Amino acid sequence: MSPLAVPLPDLPPIAGVRLGAIAAGIRYQNRVDLVMAEFAPGTHVAGVFTQNRCPGAPIDWCRAALSGGHARALVVNAGNANVFTGAAGREATAATARATAALVGCADQEIFLASTGVIGEVLPYARITAALPALHAKLAPDAWPDAAHGIMTTDTFAKGATRIASVGGVPVRISGFAKGSGMIAPDMATMLCFVFTDAALPAASLQAMLRTGVQASFNCTTVDSDTSTSDTVLLFATGQAGNPPGADTADFATALNSLLLDLALQVVRDGEGAQKFIRIDVTGAVDDASARRVALAVANSPLVKTAIAGEDANWGRIVMAVGKAGEPADRDLLSVAVGGIWMARQGSVVPGYDEAPVVAHMQSRDIKLEIDLGLGEGRGIAWTCDLTHGYIDINGNYRS
Amino acid sequence: MSPLAVPLPDLPPIAGVRLGAIAAGIRYQNRVDLVMAEFAPGTHVAGVFTQNRCPGAPIDWCRAALSGGHARALVVNAGNANVFTGAAGREATAATARATAALVGCADQEIFLASTGVIGEVLPYARITAALPALHAKLAPDAWPDAAHGIMTTDTFAKGATRIASVGGVPVRISGFAKGSGMIAPDMATMLCFVFTDAALPAASLQAMLRTGVQASFNCTTVDSDTSTSDTVLLFATGQAGNPPGADTADFATALNSLLLDLALQVVRDGEGAQKFIRIDVTGAVDDASARRVALAVANSPLVKTAIAGEDANWGRIVMAVGKAGEPADRDLLSVAVGGIWMARQGSVVPGYDEAPVVAHMQSRDIKLEIDLGLGEGRGIAWTCDLTHGYIDINGNYRS
Repeated sequence: MSPLAVPLPDLPPIAGVRLGAIAAGIRYQNRVDLVMAEFAPGTHVAGVFTQNRCPGAPIDWCRAALSGGHARALVVNAGNANVFTGAAGREATAATARATAALVGCADQEIFLASTGVIGEVLPYARITAALPALHAKLAPDAWPDAAHGIMTTDTFAKGATRIASVGGVPVRISGFAKGSGMIAPDMATMLCFVFTDAALPAASLQAMLRTGVQASFNCTTVDSDTSTSDTVLLFATGQAGNPPGADTADFATALNSLLLDLALQVVRDGEGAQKFIRIDVTGAVDDASARRVALAVANSPLVKTAIAGEDANWGRIVMAVGKAGEPADRDLLSVAVGGIWMARQGSVVPGYDEAPVVAHMQSRDIKLEIDLGLGEGRGIAWTCDLTHGYIDINGNYRS
Repeated sequence: MSPLAVPLPDLPPIAGVRLGAIAAGIRYQNRVDLVMAEFAPGTHVAGVFTQNRCPGAPIDWCRAALSGGHARALVVNAGNANVFTGAAGREATAATARATAALVGCADQEIFLASTGVIGEVLPYARITAALPALHAKLAPDAWPDAAHGIMTTDTFAKGATRIASVGGVPVRISGFAKGSGMIAPDMATMLCFVFTDAALPAASLQAMLRTGVQASFNCTTVDSDTSTSDTVLLFATGQAGNPPGADTADFATALNSLLLDLALQVVRDGEGAQKFIRIDVTGAVDDASARRVALAVANSPLVKTAIAGEDANWGRIVMAVGKAGEPADRDLLSVAVGGIWMARQGSVVPGYDEAPVVAHMQSRDIKLEIDLGLGEGRGIAWTCDLTHGYIDINGNYRS
């Protein structure tokens, strides 16, 4: 269990959503590895997917299905990503969707699919279709913990969040769960994140809000700089809350953004081998996009991450990482703070700065780095974790 | 000592070069940490430096000095990089150059400087200037091993290479030594590499050949994706061989390229924590530059590198890394070979491929990956090492 773990919050029922999980024996024995959610007729859907050029078959399936804008069910398996599996991969998604649609009584393209786990091995989808009837029969409005656990692979804790928002004076609920702990540098999403709401909102509006929310949350996080072939964020809106159409969505968007950031940071807290949670604030960049790229370059630097693992406030490595980002930066205008203490200002170490609070800060679980480039008004944030022996243990032995 | 280490070859004298090393106590106690080389009058120089936007003070110094095209001495220290040291850093370079020039009897701008080690701490240059007279007094034409050892920091073995070439029918010698084992993703050079020849060649010709040679050697290697603030390659030509001016330089360029690649691969072999040496050949890209970027994306993937450390022929992670490179790639045209065995062709695993030779290959020291993108004629190569517990050990405790 990650030392940075947070407990799964209580996730109350959402009108129009029933869900559950079952052990289908896809790869693991004696653990749940198949999750299903069924939605009321009229549910709208939005999605954001990986930018990886070699996506898995479920990504292809969801991208095509998304054009309809409607969803009746979600099926997620753990243990096999169905990536780089050619025609067999396409057959697996089509057969899974067909079997699910038959149970639910809807069109195949109202079924959404996601898979994570080993890449390059054929998904034994017959185990999924064989398990689906029993899973469908036991779907329930309160099985959120089962579902949050059922999508895990190398995760050490289940990740969930819930918010209340107001749409046109009507309270609506937004809840979600996510998985991910390695191969995390989303460039649009994390491994998998599913969000559900009873709000009545059109698919186009959901899509716009989801894309904005992902950019400021999952796309500002990294564990190991590796972008998964399966990254998926899906947002399902059942419309059961009865809010009036055309109402202002600002409060909903605020709650959605908060929920997405909560889930994204839980993924970072479960980063493979993570011992420390790191926030990097960049200010003074030429623009916000540049600030974000600098923050992510620092977040992805193995030398910065190992220094933090060693509890060493090695600002020199931070400077190196700023400089390698390829963004506008002037060494002689650069300032660096660790734990709120400015150790270096305008290109050199602050003479006689008080090292004691910095040393104490480096021994804590939550590490804060601040970098001011001194060039403009651009700001950005990235979140990551440290790089430890645990990461090597997990990833040097994943398939054995 | 890296299990991939190779012995330092015999480096014979080069007319016009005298060199040596001494313990100046810059950071380490009781080991050589200061290296000097003195060149005959008339020596030409070329240089290529880091693309990091926060370079060290010695980089600024060398870039300015290079405009003169002449060199009389090189001074290199280990233990402190003189990076992010502001005015104190500039003072250190100027004072070191001034003291060296006084000993040699030349202009300050004929002195070239390089420093590696800790970043962000003020270089105690008075220890250098105090040690220089004794160092200068003992320079000798045969002290190549001392010099190659004296520039090391976390290196586990000294790295050198030598070649013979013909310029206008006259044999000339090219010898060099290098250092580097972490913070290695040069984007133009490695940490430090110094090359010496007795050939008589103009500075502009040397510069053009050096830039070409670095692009095909150091710029195709990576250990940890971090680009040092101090990367430097300098080429000094004393002109003592007496070759005719204006002669064809093709044979010299071929020998220089071979020597630079030899040194670059020795740096990879000394990658921090390296247990395996990895070569990645990419073919079928839209062009050579794209192929090189894909090869480097695979070389920089922590998940690929830890899989190889675990002796796991995990082609799925290779596919992921190809896809995240941001270069043109089509999952369904992609083929992957490990150890010469094509495990996946055109987007899916080769049915019934013989796994035994792949397993045996993964247990060897030299790992070969081949990736064919199936799009065009572009080819590129990258070299790297695996990511092991040794890397975490070295970099989580560097300053303690």
